[in-house]
Amino acid sequence: MEFQLIKQDPLTGARLGKISTLHGQVETPAFMPVGTLGTVKALLPEMLQEAGVEMILSNTYHLYLRPGHELIRDFGGLHRFMQWPGPILTDSGGFQIYSLAPLRKITPEGVIFRSHIDGREHFISPQLAVEIQEALGSDIMMCFDECPPYPTTFAAAEKSLALTTTWARICRQARRGDHQALFGIVQGSSYPALRRRAVEELVDIGFDGYALGGLSVGEPKDLMYDLVQQTAPLLPERSPRYLMGVGTRDDILYCVGQGIDMFDCVIPTRSARHGLLFTNEEKVVIRNARYRHDEGPVDRNCDCYTCRKYSRAYLRHLFTAKEILAMILGTIHNVRYYMRLMENIRAAIAGDRYGEFTRELLSQEK
Amino acid sequence: MEFQLIKQDPLTGARLGKISTLHGQVETPAFMPVGTLGTVKALLPEMLQEAGVEMILSNTYHLYLRPGHELIRDFGGLHRFMQWPGPILTDSGGFQIYSLAPLRKITPEGVIFRSHIDGREHFISPQLAVEIQEALGSDIMMCFDECPPYPTTFAAAEKSLALTTTWARICRQARRGDHQALFGIVQGSSYPALRRRAVEELVDIGFDGYALGGLSVGEPKDLMYDLVQQTAPLLPERSPRYLMGVGTRDDILYCVGQGIDMFDCVIPTRSARHGLLFTNEEKVVIRNARYRHDEGPVDRNCDCYTCRKYSRAYLRHLFTAKEILAMILGTIHNVRYYMRLMENIRAAIAGDRYGEFTRELLSQEK
Repeated sequence: MEFQLIKQDPLTGARLGKISTLHGQVETPAFMPVGTLGTVKALLPEMLQEAGVEMILSNTYHLYLRPGHELIRDFGGLHRFMQWPGPILTDSGGFQIYSLAPLRKITPEGVIFRSHIDGREHFISPQLAVEIQEALGSDIMMCFDECPPYPTTFAAAEKSLALTTTWARICRQARRGDHQALFGIVQGSSYPALRRRAVEELVDIGFDGYALGGLSVGEPKDLMYDLVQQTAPLLPERSPRYLMGVGTRDDILYCVGQGIDMFDCVIPTRSARHGLLFTNEEKVVIRNARYRHDEGPVDRNCDCYTCRKYSRAYLRHLFTAKEILAMILGTIHNVRYYMRLMENIRAAIAGDRYGEFTRELLSQEK
Repeated sequence: MEFQLIKQDPLTGARLGKISTLHGQVETPAFMPVGTLGTVKALLPEMLQEAGVEMILSNTYHLYLRPGHELIRDFGGLHRFMQWPGPILTDSGGFQIYSLAPLRKITPEGVIFRSHIDGREHFISPQLAVEIQEALGSDIMMCFDECPPYPTTFAAAEKSLALTTTWARICRQARRGDHQALFGIVQGSSYPALRRRAVEELVDIGFDGYALGGLSVGEPKDLMYDLVQQTAPLLPERSPRYLMGVGTRDDILYCVGQGIDMFDCVIPTRSARHGLLFTNEEKVVIRNARYRHDEGPVDRNCDCYTCRKYSRAYLRHLFTAKEILAMILGTIHNVRYYMRLMENIRAAIAGDRYGEFTRELLSQEK
């Protein structure tokens, strides 16, 4: 993997860049739709491509449990298994274990947990997390980390960070070859001093990119913004910076301004399945009775398949009737909305007007 | 609507034909996938076209209740509302009322029933059934009929048939203009004499086509076959013959041989959503553990998008994980399977080898 830093916005910290992988290039700032189980829910790969998606995220924890990473390795990796030809980033499974799996025990060697599917006990070590991601064949792997809940005491966060750093070193050593990139994850809970220490320790080990983890886990929005603002500038300029699990449009606007290059979040896809469709002017709750006779598209400024062809009234009908097509068409729109957002962000940075662009966008809301 | 009878198989009753409508042509024998609520479940219109679908069926009862036929009329009809450019046949709503709606009362003027959605009372007369279908703007409308359950006494079936004939006459008179075709429905339960009477009465009124209704409602398969065999030849040669709600591949093979031109059924789409995928050799229960490592397509003889791109193992994974993509890919395959079946049936009739074709197909099963 290579990262080319093309330019920085002169007035903000926003960066324009390009990630090159064996499966293609990704222009940054980039947003990755989430394909938890080897499919971005409700979409064909061709629909992702038509929406302008370059890289997707897939979840190691879920694929390890089902269908199993060895099966996917036998198929030549996740790209071939799911027929997605572009770059894939896999998380390490850590966050999902802490948020989904019951009865876990964290030891210096790894994590014991029960599957949320059948309750069977599993053990994942940092070594195994890398091995699983190597079996999946993702373009970017993430270090296995511990993600403390919010709030956590300083002492507990410090102890957790020490484990995360130890595991990061183990992941770095466990990795075979360099055709898959490996990113370190900056933890440290809500403590800037620990975040700074995490950056120093990870940079000392040396990774292909750096992620901010353990954010958007229940802390106040302003605290998350503060931590991103204080931590992002500490990261190496020449490596991609990835804010995990974030976020809303406004989160992305703010954090791009702090120098973040990569994002992932279930918001566009999950919201779409629940009938919440995004436009710059408003969030359209498409089941609302006011759309019953609405002949217009979800978003008159949108060029997606859904907006080119279908009325709000038809979408409202499909969502009300709980038709599968509702989820397909809604997801197509929301993913394209996020991709257009990122295209516009990149164009604004390229044109030295990122701050202006952000202000304009925020003023369009009803 | 025009129907051109191109040829008849010299050894069987199989017919090759073409229906021409304002929205395009339909080669017969034809199978119509069911789009109950203005969407063939899990498919985009483009996927139907790619599968070779020429005409779809939509359900008047469902669309009358939700979103309402007046709303669809305001949109210029169902074609535009759902963005399906090809021919549409609408049933009359009768069968759905009898099978889905509780607390009904049948009067000489029409049927009082409660919505299966919210329990509200509705009344549909033969006149209203035509008016609704005119609002939907379908290419082929069906007469409002009474569909007695199986078994029914001769006396009850005779009384029911009298009502159906009266209603057929009312529908014929209620119809405005002739840009939408109107088909009569042959009832008469399991009594050949009543079926014969039904045909005579309907032909006397005069319709653009004739359907066999009230079959596949729980009667033994052989009885259904016998009734089709005895009734189909009585129908006017120069009009299309439609067997409603049928059926399996073998039903279609048999009934085409009796001179049926049109079929509809939820089997391919509903089965697909439950992970039952069709091939000539076997029915693939894709969740079965034997497919866990299977790198082959669902059907190596199939040219559908699903079979061109995805393995049985991936489909099994998607179905096991209950992913929406599972239902999309499964439906694409099963609809294409039915369309290929109809293409092969038409080619066999064209080649004077329909009987041979049927025997060959039946012998391929494992």
